[in-house]
Amino acid sequence: MVVRAAVAGASGYAGGELLRLLSAHPEVEIGALTGHSNAGQTLGSLQPHLRPLADRVLEPTTAEALAGHDVVFLALPHGQSAAVAEQLGDEVLVVDMGADFRLKDAGDWETFYGSPHAGTWPYGLPELPGGRAALAGVKRIAVPGCYPTAVSLALFPAYEAGIAEPEAVIVAASGTSGAGKAAKPHLLGSEVMGNMTPYGVGGGHRHTPEMIQNLSAAAGQPVTVSFTPTLAPMPRGILATCSAKARPGVSAESLRAVYGKAFADEPFVDLLPEGQWPATAAVYGSNAVQIQVAHDPAAGRIVVVCAIDNLAKGTAGGALQSMNIALGLPEDTGLSTIGVAP
Amino acid sequence: MVVRAAVAGASGYAGGELLRLLSAHPEVEIGALTGHSNAGQTLGSLQPHLRPLADRVLEPTTAEALAGHDVVFLALPHGQSAAVAEQLGDEVLVVDMGADFRLKDAGDWETFYGSPHAGTWPYGLPELPGGRAALAGVKRIAVPGCYPTAVSLALFPAYEAGIAEPEAVIVAASGTSGAGKAAKPHLLGSEVMGNMTPYGVGGGHRHTPEMIQNLSAAAGQPVTVSFTPTLAPMPRGILATCSAKARPGVSAESLRAVYGKAFADEPFVDLLPEGQWPATAAVYGSNAVQIQVAHDPAAGRIVVVCAIDNLAKGTAGGALQSMNIALGLPEDTGLSTIGVAP
Amino acid sequence: MVVRAAVAGASGYAGGELLRLLSAHPEVEIGALTGHSNAGQTLGSLQPHLRPLADRVLEPTTAEALAGHDVVFLALPHGQSAAVAEQLGDEVLVVDMGADFRLKDAGDWETFYGSPHAGTWPYGLPELPGGRAALAGVKRIAVPGCYPTAVSLALFPAYEAGIAEPEAVIVAASGTSGAGKAAKPHLLGSEVMGNMTPYGVGGGHRHTPEMIQNLSAAAGQPVTVSFTPTLAPMPRGILATCSAKARPGVSAESLRAVYGKAFADEPFVDLLPEGQWPATAAVYGSNAVQIQVAHDPAAGRIVVVCAIDNLAKGTAGGALQSMNIALGLPEDTGLSTIGVAP
Amino acid sequence: MVVRAAVAGASGYAGGELLRLLSAHPEVEIGALTGHSNAGQTLGSLQPHLRPLADRVLEPTTAEALAGHDVVFLALPHGQSAAVAEQLGDEVLVVDMGADFRLKDAGDWETFYGSPHAGTWPYGLPELPGGRAALAGVKRIAVPGCYPTAVSLALFPAYEAGIAEPEAVIVAASGTSGAGKAAKPHLLGSEVMGNMTPYGVGGGHRHTPEMIQNLSAAAGQPVTVSFTPTLAPMPRGILATCSAKARPGVSAESLRAVYGKAFADEPFVDLLPEGQWPATAAVYGSNAVQIQVAHDPAAGRIVVVCAIDNLAKGTAGGALQSMNIALGLPEDTGLSTIGVAP
Repeated sequence: MVVRAAVAGASGYAGGELLRLLSAHPEVEIGALTGHSNAGQTLGSLQPHLRPLADRVLEPTTAEALAGHDVVFLALPHGQSAAVAEQLGDEVLVVDMGADFRLKDAGDWETFYGSPHAGTWPYGLPELPGGRAALAGVKRIAVPGCYPTAVSLALFPAYEAGIAEPEAVIVAASGTSGAGKAAKPHLLGSEVMGNMTPYGVGGGHRHTPEMIQNLSAAAGQPVTVSFTPTLAPMPRGILATCSAKARPGVSAESLRAVYGKAFADEPFVDLLPEGQWPATAAVYGSNAVQIQVAHDPAAGRIVVVCAIDNLAKGTAGGALQSMNIALGLPEDTGLSTIGVAP
Repeated sequence: MVVRAAVAGASGYAGGELLRLLSAHPEVEIGALTGHSNAGQTLGSLQPHLRPLADRVLEPTTAEALAGHDVVFLALPHGQSAAVAEQLGDEVLVVDMGADFRLKDAGDWETFYGSPHAGTWPYGLPELPGGRAALAGVKRIAVPGCYPTAVSLALFPAYEAGIAEPEAVIVAASGTSGAGKAAKPHLLGSEVMGNMTPYGVGGGHRHTPEMIQNLSAAAGQPVTVSFTPTLAPMPRGILATCSAKARPGVSAESLRAVYGKAFADEPFVDLLPEGQWPATAAVYGSNAVQIQVAHDPAAGRIVVVCAIDNLAKGTAGGALQSMNIALGLPEDTGLSTIGVAP
Repeated sequence: MVVRAAVAGASGYAGGELLRLLSAHPEVEIGALTGHSNAGQTLGSLQPHLRPLADRVLEPTTAEALAGHDVVFLALPHGQSAAVAEQLGDEVLVVDMGADFRLKDAGDWETFYGSPHAGTWPYGLPELPGGRAALAGVKRIAVPGCYPTAVSLALFPAYEAGIAEPEAVIVAASGTSGAGKAAKPHLLGSEVMGNMTPYGVGGGHRHTPEMIQNLSAAAGQPVTVSFTPTLAPMPRGILATCSAKARPGVSAESLRAVYGKAFADEPFVDLLPEGQWPATAAVYGSNAVQIQVAHDPAAGRIVVVCAIDNLAKGTAGGALQSMNIALGLPEDTGLSTIGVAP
Repeated sequence: MVVRAAVAGASGYAGGELLRLLSAHPEVEIGALTGHSNAGQTLGSLQPHLRPLADRVLEPTTAEALAGHDVVFLALPHGQSAAVAEQLGDEVLVVDMGADFRLKDAGDWETFYGSPHAGTWPYGLPELPGGRAALAGVKRIAVPGCYPTAVSLALFPAYEAGIAEPEAVIVAASGTSGAGKAAKPHLLGSEVMGNMTPYGVGGGHRHTPEMIQNLSAAAGQPVTVSFTPTLAPMPRGILATCSAKARPGVSAESLRAVYGKAFADEPFVDLLPEGQWPATAAVYGSNAVQIQVAHDPAAGRIVVVCAIDNLAKGTAGGALQSMNIALGLPEDTGLSTIGVAP
């Protein structure tokens, strides 16, 4: 099988990571690479780590450039995917790494993004209940946000099992690549090194409704989410610390049993041995998910910590995993669970 | 006024920061410096940044070495302060930067530290209700832990004002200096750079009962604390993200009013302008505390974020601030609210 | 004595560091603060670490705003200082932290900066031979570049003593603040963390002629300089590794003697004890200069390593030191040799 | 072909990186893993990023444990390889990642390592003149040191072509993993973050004679090396800045031509396009080598900058590359030139 893949938005961090992973995918042939302001430049000048592709030249993002592929990945700014996708036809698999088609509720979209809702595509988080079935053979995939990937994997087992109250509190730290490659003063190295700072506090982050959507579905009832993202002095990685009140009868053992069962057959999710805690460095560059759980009887809460690589499992790796499913390939084709450390 | 100060434990991070600050204190003359395994070495080889003190030689930590000073600072491993303090006499001001005398409840101490409780000293957090009065003229001061400093300042106003439910959820990131200078594999630069990882999850961190003590006192009722500390890839700084369910009637305005009132006259605490969020880099090396608040109506919670320098306001700066009060000096003598940035 | 000081260019890294140091200077009163694109904004939003000045508003950089001060510091982009300085009158002390007045040779200026040469002002590196005398009572000071500060201090003693061949090879690492606060993609945190990369290789860096000027003066003959700067993943600091062929008869002892003599009376320069090497972390935020020397008989070279804080001794601290001399104040007024570490 | 490989010293950084790469090698089956103080522990607790191997238990490093493999990799402390290798028999391919068999001159070994010389094995740097031929079919390989890998690749073309004087000056920055995983105070995260510092200055670093050996062989005459290594605040990567006086007649064009020819057919070495400079971040985790050259006519020198990943091409990747050659496999089997960035 040869899967010919195009990447729209090849100059950014998500596009670059996708190309790194596609290069190692045995069934994929990399086709057109497109960009916007960088069209006409070589990839070598934009992504110097992608040496075998250094001489490839970015084309403008047009339907013509993207035509003739089996899969088209869209790594575009939010709000731009729909217009491109419409022109690609129903036969091509379109994988959107932006936010446009993640939310089911048009009102949520409009509240958080301030534009008309483009629609809802099959959601690319196979580990969720029913997640794999929803992706088999599809031609459209909405890749989850990086934070919702970590948080949903951390908490859906508790909500599915009914062991937690429907009020989640989440504080997550993200590496700076999550903020993208556009040059902004607060993202300068001089500003971020040695610095931890929150943003979007109090419910304002656009990933909040996506978390609510996933956790409410798992719980079978509305779940509220208090989400505080923080920017950490590292290029990659998300560490999500998630907690909720334990329902009566929950113990350390029952909590661990719920999670052990939820992830027993998952190729990418690792419920760590007791005593070992997730570390973003351990999943650097990999599609692995590290999870650990704790029951705090004094506070009456369960605490679940999850570490992922925001660009890999959190974006490009997750996209590839879902593509594999949609195309009928083994789910882990071209994806590694080995991180680059130290 | 000349205050002659000795420092027991001058080779560690807390001792080094204290000496940095004492060097800039106009009323202090630095006397004996003592160490344990490093006794006999010059300070220049142990703390190369303290250039004017480079030729000072560390003495062993004995009552003789520490005698004849107006103030003795103890920067010793937990459990060792009581034996030293006993020998110093009642006339000398003893400032303990360890944990030994922070807790009021002997049972808490024994649960978390596994040794007999040494006692309780006046608590060195002047910003707490009644905090200053409790320090005037005292001869013994227990310097708060770094996390409890940040968390107590973040949440006591809400609990004192009765606007939050007594179940606090706290996730805090700390720079690596908080873990001390002893060489341990997981603290190697190769391990911590690019890495976020939690520890002591589920109520196990020793600073938890100290937070509970302070917040319960402010609330006038028992407060539970779910506390998750994380290790961040930076040398200094604590960013504490603290939240609790809002009591009925709380609004963004009333929340801000409570905090504005609580810190109106505080020389070191800064309730930031709306829209600006605390950043550890902004308080690097300073005694300043940055606080910002948010009301999240959808989640029904208040969120308070606090940034401090764990070694400065969180340890040595806080110690000096309390010393100033105990000695009747202006509280901010020798202490700056200007950080070193970028 | 009250010295009223204005700062033109208060929003950048050099301006911010200068304001941090001026705030601690006992004889200085901070007057007008000006900016260009940031005029009208509060300093609190631009320099959140400068808390006591948070409510100050930046004025546009005009002669009117800068009038009525005893000292005016110019922290402007290269090429803009002359026009401002002309309007300030001969009575005010003008300290230029830009490059405009550093070079004596107009041809060098034009070659490296591509614009007409504005002139030459007294050079603000007091440690150079005759350096202090050249600053006494002056009304104009050209603050050296950060790299030339480190490199000139590292090598002038060898050249003055005639123990090194006049062909210097220098490789220096700089923290990212040396590249300024303008948002450029290659300075993003995501790009610089975990990264070392050179720039301006092969003689192209604008600081090269300034080094040649200083070293040639010390040598009494033309000195060539091979200079390679590298960008290091840290916010501050310069580590300059400088070497030259040893002249016949040089030994480890004679080398050390030359440097010991050169810096014996210098308040800010520290020839470290044998076996201890300069570290940028040890001078973080301070005006100290750490130097160490080695003789490599197998390679026939002397190696001198120098660490400074690029923003402190390398820019704002050096500016203040020279201001003190020009005004007749003790040279170390308001300047510390204690770094902030770890 | 199935190559069964054992790794002695699987708990360290070199061993861990080797296992990461071996896991992706299509012809290799990972056999015994041994350790010393960590024997009996699971790999999951020591190398949490190597998830698929997490349940493997380290055996003690004995001849029995290492018997029955096609290849045995030794990632042992210096001086321990000979005793192990002797017991492994002549039929097994032994790849030593330590220093023991790199040097040809017994006197050099004794001077720099202070112990008897164990011997000299075929040298695992295929890119050197005659390097590949020297590895075909061998049963013993000495993997080069990380610094000598970078420096030899940077300078051998100039010396082979006779365009540089035989006095090389090298300043290199290394990530902290180059200093190993043993917990030492100066390698703590608190110490290394924000810090650049040199070590082994003046000819003392053990990698110096290895560089001299390689460069002298390329030059056909003795080459002196002034080598200053520095520790940089990043986990991985080496940036080597190398220069030498240009011989008469050298120009930017002729210099570039020499390097273009030297690396034209090299699968892992990239002479970057003009204007682009090596960056350690671009080769993170990959076997790629980035090189750029400059001619500085004013200083009369050529400057060559080289970036590698010290653990990959500098150690484990280089080991695998040489193993491939020795076994008759395609040289790039299991090795990528794509870095993990940002």
